[in-house]
Amino acid sequence: MSLLVIGTVAYDAIETPFGKTDKIVGGAASFISLAASYYYSNIHLVSVIGDDYDQNFLQLLKTKGVDLTGLQVKQGQKSFFWKGKYHIDMNSRDTLDTQLNVLSDFDPVVPEMVRNSDFVMLGNLMPSLQMKVLKQLTKRPKLVMMDTMNFWMQTALEDLLKVLKEIDILTINDEEARLLTNTHSLKKAALQILKMGPKILIIKKGEHGALLFKDKEVFFAPALPLEEVFDPTGAGDSFAGGMIGYLARTNDLSFENLKRAIIVGSAMASFTVEKFGTEALQNLTKEQIHKRIQEFVKLSSFEMKLETANV
Amino acid sequence: MSLLVIGTVAYDAIETPFGKTDKIVGGAASFISLAASYYYSNIHLVSVIGDDYDQNFLQLLKTKGVDLTGLQVKQGQKSFFWKGKYHIDMNSRDTLDTQLNVLSDFDPVVPEMVRNSDFVMLGNLMPSLQMKVLKQLTKRPKLVMMDTMNFWMQTALEDLLKVLKEIDILTINDEEARLLTNTHSLKKAALQILKMGPKILIIKKGEHGALLFKDKEVFFAPALPLEEVFDPTGAGDSFAGGMIGYLARTNDLSFENLKRAIIVGSAMASFTVEKFGTEALQNLTKEQIHKRIQEFVKLSSFEMKLETANV
Repeated sequence: MSLLVIGTVAYDAIETPFGKTDKIVGGAASFISLAASYYYSNIHLVSVIGDDYDQNFLQLLKTKGVDLTGLQVKQGQKSFFWKGKYHIDMNSRDTLDTQLNVLSDFDPVVPEMVRNSDFVMLGNLMPSLQMKVLKQLTKRPKLVMMDTMNFWMQTALEDLLKVLKEIDILTINDEEARLLTNTHSLKKAALQILKMGPKILIIKKGEHGALLFKDKEVFFAPALPLEEVFDPTGAGDSFAGGMIGYLARTNDLSFENLKRAIIVGSAMASFTVEKFGTEALQNLTKEQIHKRIQEFVKLSSFEMKLETANV
Repeated sequence: MSLLVIGTVAYDAIETPFGKTDKIVGGAASFISLAASYYYSNIHLVSVIGDDYDQNFLQLLKTKGVDLTGLQVKQGQKSFFWKGKYHIDMNSRDTLDTQLNVLSDFDPVVPEMVRNSDFVMLGNLMPSLQMKVLKQLTKRPKLVMMDTMNFWMQTALEDLLKVLKEIDILTINDEEARLLTNTHSLKKAALQILKMGPKILIIKKGEHGALLFKDKEVFFAPALPLEEVFDPTGAGDSFAGGMIGYLARTNDLSFENLKRAIIVGSAMASFTVEKFGTEALQNLTKEQIHKRIQEFVKLSSFEMKLETANV
């Protein structure tokens, strides 16, 4: 069994109300792989970088068990770069600069030996590239999970809808769910999206938690109220990475286990936002993760007494 | 034991994206009393109306066990009237008309026999009037719960801060928590507010659920994803009413029971928003409430397996 991760490996420059960074390592696939690595060790990354990329970070990924065979290195070219600034409420941000660089003609190639992966995470990327990866697989994976964003809904909807038909789990945020369906009620939007292909939909609501929809079932995962959200970059990717890492480890796609996977994802995201970029995810201990998950359990568990609930 | 409720008994005219009403019965104390009545029967309302008020509704309150001895009826005067229009996202609204009428010189009088109430709910009202009620009590109640709003923070902050020192539970929404503390992080805001007097703070986040803070403990109560929020008017009051009704019935102020009370409050609010005004709360059955609470249990319960949580 293996977990295939596709997405960007990039440089970010981030400005938040709490500070700013120069170029730091980032990208959807970086966050996903790091988060997943705490639960699963047979991870294979498919992405592209220039020859300017941080070798120490690549080494770190390797030591975390992330195989980089599928990571193309373009000599003489620069890595994808994104620069953004978060507003004071941390819920919205402005893109100050985007340099596609190596991403502009990226042609993903899945290494031969992992074309039969059981778990596939399509990180946020141009939908046609996500599809290209799926087409290279030699068998239908047990689970294909996909993240996407409003930009592709606005510029590549047709391609996006094609990929949706091929996947099992879609993760998007509340705004994107509304955009994709032109529907305000998230419950109604979810029912519509579940008809577009995915069997399972996860709507991420940032500090308000996440909703899991499958058939007629709904689960509401809380977000941990944090003293400070320091940098939201990569929170959604960390969420997805923690989730699919947990699912690959447990190899159990029941609704009950999906709930647990979302809690794990939420925990990984809660670490990410406490520091800049991938910093928090680089050095977590078992104990920290265990403690954080217990906080989630405490945060949302209650027991209703039947005799009094029954008015 | 008795439950004392103070707040407005009013007429509302409401416009939402789904329709509009003429004058219908409303007011914080109406919603609170109705919601509480499904859990507790010894309820005493303190408020004021004109002689134009709907007798059928007053009769309904009585049949639900709400004692109206403390409800002043001002002959020749009109009841408080509010007219508002909700925006398409239902999270914000414009006030189109406010006629204070009888409210402009309201002088609340707590009936002699209930000045020793164990449970007191101070519905949203001018803080000086909430204080007047507290001053008439002959003993410190077991529980004083208070709801307020941004308007009083902006126009009567000094009075508001005085009342805060006298209460046990404060319910406000996320925007109001930020306004009151000038702090964006809800966790930080909560810690500040808990220093202002209340032992327990509940931050209502509408469709995103509610947060309960007590000392260093936090609980995140989900909101039920509804197909349609029809009219949010009275949701917060129904929440408070369900909560204090449940607390009075169970007479248990432990953290575990506070969690249950919030779930009950959330359930009552979820009914309210499905119809105009008090319509939904007027005719609930035990079975409906029981079923709704089970939906909340299902919505947020999960069980973490220790062996896999421990990465």
